[in-house]
Order: sequence, then structure tokens, then C-alpha cells
Amino acid sequence: MGGKKAVVLLSGGLDSATVLALAKRDGYECHCLTFAYGQRHVVEVEAARMLVARMNASAHRIVDLDLSVFGGSALTGQGDIPKDRSAAAMAEGIPVTYVPARNTVFLAYALAWAEVLEAHTIFIGVNSVDYSGYPDCRPEFIAAFQQLASYATRAGVEGRGPILHAPLIHMSKAEIIQTGTDLHVAFEATHSCYDPVGGLACGRCDSCAIRRRGFQDAGIADPTRYAAVAKT
Amino acid sequence: MGGKKAVVLLSGGLDSATVLALAKRDGYECHCLTFAYGQRHVVEVEAARMLVARMNASAHRIVDLDLSVFGGSALTGQGDIPKDRSAAAMAEGIPVTYVPARNTVFLAYALAWAEVLEAHTIFIGVNSVDYSGYPDCRPEFIAAFQQLASYATRAGVEGRGPILHAPLIHMSKAEIIQTGTDLHVAFEATHSCYDPVGGLACGRCDSCAIRRRGFQDAGIADPTRYAAVAKT
Repeated sequence: MGGKKAVVLLSGGLDSATVLALAKRDGYECHCLTFAYGQRHVVEVEAARMLVARMNASAHRIVDLDLSVFGGSALTGQGDIPKDRSAAAMAEGIPVTYVPARNTVFLAYALAWAEVLEAHTIFIGVNSVDYSGYPDCRPEFIAAFQQLASYATRAGVEGRGPILHAPLIHMSKAEIIQTGTDLHVAFEATHSCYDPVGGLACGRCDSCAIRRRGFQDAGIADPTRYAAVAKT
Repeated sequence: MGGKKAVVLLSGGLDSATVLALAKRDGYECHCLTFAYGQRHVVEVEAARMLVARMNASAHRIVDLDLSVFGGSALTGQGDIPKDRSAAAMAEGIPVTYVPARNTVFLAYALAWAEVLEAHTIFIGVNSVDYSGYPDCRPEFIAAFQQLASYATRAGVEGRGPILHAPLIHMSKAEIIQTGTDLHVAFEATHSCYDPVGGLACGRCDSCAIRRRGFQDAGIADPTRYAAVAKT
């Protein structure tokens, strides 16, 4: 046994990039897991690949899975991605970009890989402050998956089921950006936009809006190239 | 809203076939979900297809996913499948045919589909009596996933997260076979063997051994064609 191993869910966005930096700072050997799940913004998978190389992670698996087989989300379907929504509108309910059970599926795969690697830690970059209102980003979801992980596997039976770490869960977007900046995360290599336009972030979807505001609030220059400025 | 909808995990084995029969008896509109996950006995997927047709289920999705990408199991790898093990040996520990986090992954997909269908019920054919000692077949695993399901999705947030039914969980294999027989399950169309030989069940793996003994204990003729008789 060399270092301590962790599975790190890495979407290619700025949250998971910051999580990877935190895990590396804390001495974990990071095995990154990325999903090509039928998302419209599959360009984020390329961002993940770039981050793994830049941040010198130990391993990277990109798993193809097709959540669009079930439908039910604008993010994997053909419906419109909402644009120019106000903060108040974003705070209401669960948006159409929610992908049914996405984080449950992602964590299930992470659990499988952690078991094979004998990794005792799984990192996930969910946060419940400046987020899109997805049910599977809330602390109670993470706590329930932690409970499940302690029963679901061989390691669980033996009392050493993996620990789920969600270090961003109570941070604002600005705090995440500050944390990542302190750890020299290459934010210019990260991708957040749900609906990229000709290689650029659209600048108008919820994810772009939250990202832009985060950089503004942190007082840090946003390296992202946006195709447009939000109208609200 | 016509009938009540359920997602039914259907492997093609005798347990899940019996579960499908129970769900149909109870008036559910059954949406069956089968996985081609890199298992050596992929012939079970064909069995599932046959069962769906015979039992007149409402829908069937076969999801390709590659759990062999992580390794860690004789069932998805190249290692040997244990043969001719005694009941005592089978009762000890978790066998090499355990697939890391398999049921967590399967249930995560079921949860996604249930959410899109607005199905309030998920059926799974795990049982913890005559089984292979897998951690994710135990009642405490099912209870933990039920808890997770009530947080993980839009339906969960709205207080109508799907209910997980595992009607076989406390039944012996003989009781399952008796139940299925009473409901006219076409057991000859089901497949249990982990290591089929030229289209026949091997007759010697744990799954064959448990199946054969189940039919014997139930006093019901086993329609399965086995390639060999177990040596123990």
C-alpha cells in the first residue's frame, strides 16, 4: 500500500476541478472518473481530460453511459436550455436541466471502482448553495448515499466502506473559486456551460450565470470566453 | 394515469422472473430493465427478452454498461468460476463472482427510469436466504437504497419517491420456485448459470447448485438442461 487512494468524480467543471485540487493537496492518489452520459455539453469530457493531465492525477476512466435512453432532461434531450433566468427564477424548484438520478448513477460507478481499487474515499463536487436546485446535490442525499455505501459492498460488510467527501457542499460559488485559485486550479481549462455555442460558453444558461456571478463575487477575473452576455 | 407503473429489474434468472409474475399478479404495468454489463453469461439477456415476450410486460429496456471496465469479478473477467462447492463453502464469505456494487448500479438506473416514467414502484428479485453471499442482496442494503431513493430524485423531494419492493428477500429458493410455479412462470425460459457450456447450464457453479437444490427441495421437476452433475 503506497499512498491513500481516492476516486474523484471529475465532470470537467470548476467545482470538480477544485475538488481534485483539494484531494491532491490532502495527499490522495487520485483516480478520476468522468462520464459521457449523452450530455449536450460533451465538451466537458475534453475539459476533464485536460485537467487530469495538467493536475497530474494517477488515473482517469471515462465511462460511456447513455442516460438519454430514459429521456426526462433538457440536458440529454432536444428541449431548450433555459436562458437569462433571474436568480429568483433559478431559486424556484427543480429546472428542466435536471437529469434523473444522475448523481446516484455516478456515485454507484464510483463505489464500484473504489471497491476494486480498495480506495477508502470518494470525492464529489456537489454544492448546495450556489447550485441549480438539483435534489441530488443536497446534504441529505450525500448522507443517504454514505449510509448506502456502508452496506453495498464487500468493504462495507467488512466495516471499511468508503467515506464520501463532498468538501464544497456548504461553500458559495465565490468561496469555491477562491479555494481553487489558492490551489492554482487552471479554471481556464474547466467547462461549465450547458449549451456551448461554437466552442464558447453561451453566457446565458443557469450554469454560466452561476459561474460568472461566482467570479464577480470572488473579485477574481473570469478566464471564460462567453458567446454572449446574459440579459438579466 | 392508467394502471400503476413499476420498473422491474429482470436479469433473466428465475428470481426476477418470479418477481415479474408477482408484479403482474398485483396489477402493475411492468417496465422491465435488463443489463448487459459484461457478464460471461450474457445469454441471460436473451432469457430476459423471452420472458418479457411470454409474460406480456409493457416495456423492456436493455442497457449496455461495462462493469468489466473496473475489473474485480470473476463474473465479468477471465478468472475461473468456482465449481462443485459444498453448501458450507458457499456459506463462507463473499465469492469471487461478486460484481462490485452491481445492484447499486442497477438500482440507480431503475431509479432514473422510474423518475421519468413517474413509476412509484421498483421491483428487485434479491433474496438473502439461498443466495451467493453478495453484500448487495441483504435486507439492510435494500433499506439503505430505499432511504436514498427518497432523497435522490424530483419525486423524492416531492415526497413521492419510489418504493422499493423486494418480495423474495426472505424466501428460500424452494419457496421462490413454488411461488413462481403457482404463477405459471416459464422456468424453462430462465437462465441461472454463471458459466454456460455450449448453451447448457454447467450444473456445477454456485448458481446452478442453488437452483438445482431449490427445485429438489420444492419437489418440482427442474426443466433445466445441465451439462454436468455437480461432484459434491
